[in-house]
Amino acid sequence: MMITFKEALQKVLEQTLDLGKEEVTLMKSLNRILAEDIQADRDFPPFNRATKDGIAISYSNLVNTPHKFKIEGEATAGARQQILNNKVNCLEVMTGAVVPENADTVVMYEHITLVNGEVVINENVIRGQNIHYKGSDKKQGSIVITKETKISPAEIGVMASVGSSQVMVKANPKICTIATGNELVDIDVLPEPHQIRKSNMLTIEAALATVEIQATSLHIDDDKETIRHGLKKALIENDVLLLSGGVSMGKFDFIPEVMEELGVEKVFHKVAQRPGKPFWFGIHNESKTVIFSFPGNPVSTFANYHLYFLPWLHKSWDIPIEKSYIKLSIELLITPSLTRFIQVKSTWKDGSLWATPVVENGSGDLTSLAQADGFICLEPRDEAYRVGEAVPFVITR
Amino acid sequence: MMITFKEALQKVLEQTLDLGKEEVTLMKSLNRILAEDIQADRDFPPFNRATKDGIAISYSNLVNTPHKFKIEGEATAGARQQILNNKVNCLEVMTGAVVPENADTVVMYEHITLVNGEVVINENVIRGQNIHYKGSDKKQGSIVITKETKISPAEIGVMASVGSSQVMVKANPKICTIATGNELVDIDVLPEPHQIRKSNMLTIEAALATVEIQATSLHIDDDKETIRHGLKKALIENDVLLLSGGVSMGKFDFIPEVMEELGVEKVFHKVAQRPGKPFWFGIHNESKTVIFSFPGNPVSTFANYHLYFLPWLHKSWDIPIEKSYIKLSIELLITPSLTRFIQVKSTWKDGSLWATPVVENGSGDLTSLAQADGFICLEPRDEAYRVGEAVPFVITR
Repeated sequence: MMITFKEALQKVLEQTLDLGKEEVTLMKSLNRILAEDIQADRDFPPFNRATKDGIAISYSNLVNTPHKFKIEGEATAGARQQILNNKVNCLEVMTGAVVPENADTVVMYEHITLVNGEVVINENVIRGQNIHYKGSDKKQGSIVITKETKISPAEIGVMASVGSSQVMVKANPKICTIATGNELVDIDVLPEPHQIRKSNMLTIEAALATVEIQATSLHIDDDKETIRHGLKKALIENDVLLLSGGVSMGKFDFIPEVMEELGVEKVFHKVAQRPGKPFWFGIHNESKTVIFSFPGNPVSTFANYHLYFLPWLHKSWDIPIEKSYIKLSIELLITPSLTRFIQVKSTWKDGSLWATPVVENGSGDLTSLAQADGFICLEPRDEAYRVGEAVPFVITR
Repeated sequence: MMITFKEALQKVLEQTLDLGKEEVTLMKSLNRILAEDIQADRDFPPFNRATKDGIAISYSNLVNTPHKFKIEGEATAGARQQILNNKVNCLEVMTGAVVPENADTVVMYEHITLVNGEVVINENVIRGQNIHYKGSDKKQGSIVITKETKISPAEIGVMASVGSSQVMVKANPKICTIATGNELVDIDVLPEPHQIRKSNMLTIEAALATVEIQATSLHIDDDKETIRHGLKKALIENDVLLLSGGVSMGKFDFIPEVMEELGVEKVFHKVAQRPGKPFWFGIHNESKTVIFSFPGNPVSTFANYHLYFLPWLHKSWDIPIEKSYIKLSIELLITPSLTRFIQVKSTWKDGSLWATPVVENGSGDLTSLAQADGFICLEPRDEAYRVGEAVPFVITR
């Protein structure tokens, strides 16, 4: 009896690790997960800030005794706060400047004229206009970004403004990708007819790079002693092993056997899903290493990376994985007892995202990957999935 | 008379540059734009490949004279093609192995039993089953990825499998980000009360990093000679200058004046939009440099980077920018003659993406950026935008 996809995912998520945190420089924190709340280190904005170029006046003076304003001086951005010495006068003021003491209103150049060196105001003025008030965005000490936020360029800007030149982020797991199989050769080698290039783990390393994880990699030939030696070292040095190939029923698929000998506990092997059925998952309690052993073909490996590893990673980081949905552009009937993951191309239409299945040629078809934007996830059921029905969508690009 | 957003964008897109192309190593091509078609360097798969572990047989032999199969030997993945010498026999075969000469069908281990060292087949067999045929995915020389594709992990995998260890990608423009203003201090400095940290251009540099562009940066004080010297050098050394601040009407906003003196042609200044109105755009014909001078406040700069610079960049790369849409969760009335860009938080519901405006405090409010997932783009019109209406969505994270 094979385990269901839902059960398998549950079992994977029970094995999350506490990855801890680490400090990085601000620009290095891009795309990482924040591990601390970021507070305003002072009021935001830090002073009453002019939002227009023009003049700063005392409003009550304008209303009570309308007059031309003499210009006392100027307040530029980046200068200390100026003082309007005589409230019947004005100070020129630049965008970004501190509103001068004794002034409470800014009138933009477009609304004034100069007559004999004095300012005439031509438009209605509202008390306090064109000022961005101290602390009106955030008070000092208030939280501007909460922890467990994924750091995008916007967060970089906010953190820069509160002086977070060093940022505490969730630490990454140490990951080794392991390819097995004598048929694999390096990508810059011209393969013999019976050989193929090892592309599978490069796909995974690229995917890891998009979440800012630099994995190490290992290629092990199908030889039991070589596998034992390589795996033993990899278990000690890493938090996670991602394997491809080596867990089907072939005579030379030594991995499960060697894993057992090394004290790795098999949590499950094979899941009622397509593609990606011969997925093997285990843990090494001694070294606290989690092992994802994906089937050898490219679509299965890519699917299971997104279906199991990424949710595991996000749960280990204590953050939810964002769920997306997409509408079906064709009817689909999912009959047997396997959860199906179907590669689709996505397009926007009428404000919704629509999925069109990619024509693929079995799970060994690497080239179909490059046509797809992700997988739709369909549980088997009696009635067909209808056109326009929204289904879970795992985005892969 | 201010130019409209649509006209402004049009004028920006007329100034695209031919950025050329460059060769990078495969893993460095991630997130770049492909500048060549990628061809299959041989048939895909390169041989008739067994997709299951089991035995390889000659089908007609099974049908014509049902019998137990003697095992002649084995065909492992990574080994040269074996020969089934006597068609009444079988060869053991592993997933990924070349299907042996004289065999045309693979039966998996789960469907056979061994009786006295000979194989009995227990299930129905279809001729040619469990074989992924040579060239069935792609024929040698056929295109597997077309140029102008953005390279995601899936493309890395496909390119690895066809041996693209070096990849031709669209070259990046040389970009310098320039912050102006005496009020700006470095992020690791504790600012005086009248000063603020220079966060604006770090936001832009982080945004550029997400499209794999490493910009250089420059901070120029509000002094005409310093600005002239800095800009002159930057014009010569770069394809694009991204400025923030320095183009409003303040006395110390020398940028437009100096630009003119240096031979930069102003294409337009100010656009009928909010935020981001005081946007200045120009070109330096002599050095073929394009200058985007954004307003000084964070939301305006961030909006205009996405609204003008990114479309310019994509058009320079000859690729379309993907248009996204989102549904409004509240009614919005956009009356005056300004195109509005409103920061929103996005959430999935019923298979669609829904936008909720972020409460912000004017365009100087940096902290609102970190709450938003993007901007919705609304043209002014008489009737209100309805709940559930789909509107253009510029994603910023």
